Amino acid sequence: MKQIALVMVGFGNVGQAFARLLLRKEQTLADQFGLRIVVTGIITGRHGGAINSGGINLTRALETIELGQSLDILSEQPVPTNVTDFIFSSSADAMLETSPVNHHTGQPAIDHIKAALNKGMHAITANKGPVVHAFAELNKMAAMRGKRFMYESTVMDGAPIFSLFRGPLPAADLLGFSGILNSCTNFILGLQEKGMTLDEAIIEGQKIGITETDPSADIDGWDAAIKVAALCTVLMGIPLKPQQVDRTGIREITPDMIKKAQKAGERWKLVCTARRDGQRLLEASVKPARVAPGSPLYSIEGTSSYVEFKLDVLPGLGIVEGNPGPDTTAYGMLADLINTQRGQ
Amino acid sequence: MKQIALVMVGFGNVGQAFARLLLRKEQTLADQFGLRIVVTGIITGRHGGAINSGGINLTRALETIELGQSLDILSEQPVPTNVTDFIFSSSADAMLETSPVNHHTGQPAIDHIKAALNKGMHAITANKGPVVHAFAELNKMAAMRGKRFMYESTVMDGAPIFSLFRGPLPAADLLGFSGILNSCTNFILGLQEKGMTLDEAIIEGQKIGITETDPSADIDGWDAAIKVAALCTVLMGIPLKPQQVDRTGIREITPDMIKKAQKAGERWKLVCTARRDGQRLLEASVKPARVAPGSPLYSIEGTSSYVEFKLDVLPGLGIVEGNPGPDTTAYGMLADLINTQRGQ
Repeated sequence: MKQIALVMVGFGNVGQAFARLLLRKEQTLADQFGLRIVVTGIITGRHGGAINSGGINLTRALETIELGQSLDILSEQPVPTNVTDFIFSSSADAMLETSPVNHHTGQPAIDHIKAALNKGMHAITANKGPVVHAFAELNKMAAMRGKRFMYESTVMDGAPIFSLFRGPLPAADLLGFSGILNSCTNFILGLQEKGMTLDEAIIEGQKIGITETDPSADIDGWDAAIKVAALCTVLMGIPLKPQQVDRTGIREITPDMIKKAQKAGERWKLVCTARRDGQRLLEASVKPARVAPGSPLYSIEGTSSYVEFKLDVLPGLGIVEGNPGPDTTAYGMLADLINTQRGQ
Repeated sequence: MKQIALVMVGFGNVGQAFARLLLRKEQTLADQFGLRIVVTGIITGRHGGAINSGGINLTRALETIELGQSLDILSEQPVPTNVTDFIFSSSADAMLETSPVNHHTGQPAIDHIKAALNKGMHAITANKGPVVHAFAELNKMAAMRGKRFMYESTVMDGAPIFSLFRGPLPAADLLGFSGILNSCTNFILGLQEKGMTLDEAIIEGQKIGITETDPSADIDGWDAAIKVAALCTVLMGIPLKPQQVDRTGIREITPDMIKKAQKAGERWKLVCTARRDGQRLLEASVKPARVAPGSPLYSIEGTSSYVEFKLDVLPGLGIVEGNPGPDTTAYGMLADLINTQRGQ
């Protein structure tokens, strides 16, 4: 049995879902992969942190957060308040990073990942920022240390996208893709079809935790744009920043436009598209578009997402992720962690 | 550079597409995987065969078939007419098998694969028969010799299905799946929606090579049933024969039923379903069903196919394969061949 010490930066919805998943999959990890994963450190923004070289009791950590208490009570020593100091003071094998995204700079997640790689850890993130703002640098740092920089959960949550291209699709060239990559706007457009205004739909989304307090990152297409940039950067090898994506959000879609589409049997969707010719991008865009029932995009409901890849060897390979959430994001990160151990 | 000698059993549409793909990807295979693949033997049912330990010229082999000539003219020695003898007399590293499927017994493909494994070759097939009729035995034979039995192209052509579960989805439990797995009936149902009778649609399908001379394997659901059996056998670890699948084809769908569905904005599809509870199958079926535009199945046009997996860690992971053909099947086999070399 191989023991892996893990530090967790962030313990919000995704971090907690990851902890529950680890507890549930303990036996499977041992039986199928010979792995025992021990969380030796957790740091949070508002709920303190804990360090325990023998392994933090995850059930107690989840209960502590549930009760609104600080994780400090689980710590065997004082926890540095600075995240980079915390990572440096850890001696873990891997770091799991779930800090909030900064679309424009990728910070502070980039610094977290650098600290982890510098300390000889694998770095796993659900944060898109580092993928588009420091991809080459982080990969180079990881390779120099024989470690991995992993980010499966940054696009379409836990659905296998990046690992699909690393593994099952050898010798394939990605020519382009199109799809629905932002859950929030897809959910909101669905509510607008039911007669809500944009503002009403945003409030409804906030009630169930799908829409941020400041919804502009979703509504104005930034989240979709950073995902387009991540796919172009990683899968096409064409570095792209979200600011370079031709981006239109859903603000200008009026109730009248929604009704007209419905009358024609169509739906408005926020569609992401990219096309290349060799190393030249012909298009990288996020734009509202009307889609008909003949399109796979038509049936993508609520927070589900979809991407169709056009490859030289497969003319249309589509991936649907239905009903994602913190649990599916957590699974993508667990898959990353397992894959660091088996070199996939 | 590692050289891999390959023998090909069958050189029909898929075999020829594979040869063209090898020629096109020669540089990529060398650059990305350090592989040089040399076809040292080809045997066909009606176009003779060739053996050349230095490598058969694939461009000439394709031209020879194009001209309707026998491959014998490319051979440096007499070619055994018996396929098993041919495989035994070869000293290749891998065999590529594209013989026609026998839904009820899996033969003679099973014997081809056994001969290859016994000779210490990896065995790659596009034939579903061996997967459902000899899965455990072939895997055991392969494992004993440190070789692989590979079959990515047996379900949904070249779309990654089996490799997805081997690689990107570690520690996941498959609870069930549903989808459209037979291209021919989906194509025929589409023509029926345009007003053709079943017989007219079959003739149309035969004209463009989608429907077999004897269409019953498709029309009566055998092809779909064997794919359901293959997915249950491999991905759920529950051995299942096509004869055990609850199977209804599309013969009973009348023009009136098609019209009624269209009036309701729906479409008839031949839907494959399986559900498990632990090691017990709750359902394994192939049945016509009406689907609405809200279903991802609605937009699956022509010869495209779709499967949605329900996993404990991902509630709905869908895979679409658009516009498959011999080229995509050939790609699945090339992916298998590459994966034998990198242990994925």
